[in-house]
Amino acid sequence: MQGRRRRLNVISPKINTKDLGILNAFDDEYNGVIIDSEGLPSSPNSFSSILRSSLSHWKQRGKNGVWLKIMARQAHLVHIAIKEGFVYHHAETGYVVLTFWLPDEQPCMLPSTGSHQIGIGAFVINENKEVLVVKEKKCPLRCSGVWKMPTGFIDKSEEIYLGAIREVKEETGIETEFLQVVAFRHAHFVSFEKSDLFFICMLKPLSSQITIDGKEIEDAKWMQLEDFLDQPFYKEDFMSKSAIEICIAKHEQRYKGFSAHEMMSKFDDRNSHLYYAE
Amino acid sequence: MQGRRRRLNVISPKINTKDLGILNAFDDEYNGVIIDSEGLPSSPNSFSSILRSSLSHWKQRGKNGVWLKIMARQAHLVHIAIKEGFVYHHAETGYVVLTFWLPDEQPCMLPSTGSHQIGIGAFVINENKEVLVVKEKKCPLRCSGVWKMPTGFIDKSEEIYLGAIREVKEETGIETEFLQVVAFRHAHFVSFEKSDLFFICMLKPLSSQITIDGKEIEDAKWMQLEDFLDQPFYKEDFMSKSAIEICIAKHEQRYKGFSAHEMMSKFDDRNSHLYYAE
Repeated sequence: MQGRRRRLNVISPKINTKDLGILNAFDDEYNGVIIDSEGLPSSPNSFSSILRSSLSHWKQRGKNGVWLKIMARQAHLVHIAIKEGFVYHHAETGYVVLTFWLPDEQPCMLPSTGSHQIGIGAFVINENKEVLVVKEKKCPLRCSGVWKMPTGFIDKSEEIYLGAIREVKEETGIETEFLQVVAFRHAHFVSFEKSDLFFICMLKPLSSQITIDGKEIEDAKWMQLEDFLDQPFYKEDFMSKSAIEICIAKHEQRYKGFSAHEMMSKFDDRNSHLYYAE
Repeated sequence: MQGRRRRLNVISPKINTKDLGILNAFDDEYNGVIIDSEGLPSSPNSFSSILRSSLSHWKQRGKNGVWLKIMARQAHLVHIAIKEGFVYHHAETGYVVLTFWLPDEQPCMLPSTGSHQIGIGAFVINENKEVLVVKEKKCPLRCSGVWKMPTGFIDKSEEIYLGAIREVKEETGIETEFLQVVAFRHAHFVSFEKSDLFFICMLKPLSSQITIDGKEIEDAKWMQLEDFLDQPFYKEDFMSKSAIEICIAKHEQRYKGFSAHEMMSKFDDRNSHLYYAE
């Protein structure tokens, strides 16, 4: 779809101090408008009427996409926006964002929202060829009982390698140093209609004393690599087997993954990380 | 956050044929319930009352998370759910999903939704050291006029390497073969509060005749690598410069990125792709 291919960049907030009868809004970089959610009338009827006249006003001025953020406390306005032709774009705990595409020319060119969740798996192996493994408390049936590497989701705006270090520390108490992303798995329809990118990270242990996080983890230990691989799960599951083989190759210095490099991009005007083979 | 670390796996649909006065719901794998959105009463009052009794019923039975999907045509029920304590989880064009965490024990352990959008950049270079470049129509000011590699977002559930091939084909008409992901960039707060993973893909051209997609692209051409690099933008932007240097190293066979390997995972019970260095 066309709409998925455009990047929505940081918005330059220029307030439209419009005449009465038009919602307060900011301009975005793509000739669109972002309605100021602070200025929404609380009465559904007034909202409906001002929304209609605002849309017509912006359309006359050749605007493209309209963004409308409705806070949870204003939820009684959501169905009015839908009635006026808005569609849902995305939602976070405290609000929902809707959009309206003004041009007659279709399709809607507005970028879509987050389509992926980002997970990490942390392969931590020490000099005695022992792997740091955990048994999860609430794991679905098909992996219950399996000793596996610590896994988890990265936090909002967290860097991948820092997420890996944090997960290991939280689940097992072990301090680590990030080495490389050795592989990543891309899977679809994992959670609702969302896709999943799972980064397999190689970490070097900096401590050995395990402390279990009782909420999520049933048990954790250092396990001989051979015993780890001997588990039926890893013998039968080609994906997991491949991933572990890559980790072992990396441990034996027969493999090169991607390292993390922090750098500034002029294009985005922010610090980001570029992952590549050194 | 605790809630971000659990994976929501495919749901096993067991219908709860409950007594009257309780909403129809399915069980999920984590001792949670998914309300059947087909069975919601259309009157806000009835919805409010049955929702309250259902929550109390599930809480008594020790259930954890409750999932509620409200279609756009039922948008007048959204504020009722919010009033009863539900919070937004995510939204797609036609619906919004809300959640309710029943246990007294906090924090909410429900997984969060898609936090990332996935972009691709396609570096296509031919045997004459000419790079396939485009000039975008609606590019923000800071890159207007720059000849750049074709970029875009992957479609819903699309594989990364197929997205790269598609984008090149759509923007320039050029047929390509995917070689490798040579690097990826991780940036935060790119679109709203979402993060962005941008995969730099190396592709081999299989055709040479350019056909421009007039909607998105102002112009496209084959450009001598030297002229491409000579653009001030690439000299000044360390991130772009690094990425292009990696592509050139790959072209000159001095670099190894990650290839895509389709494989079945028993854990997920589906075909996924594992990207790693061969």
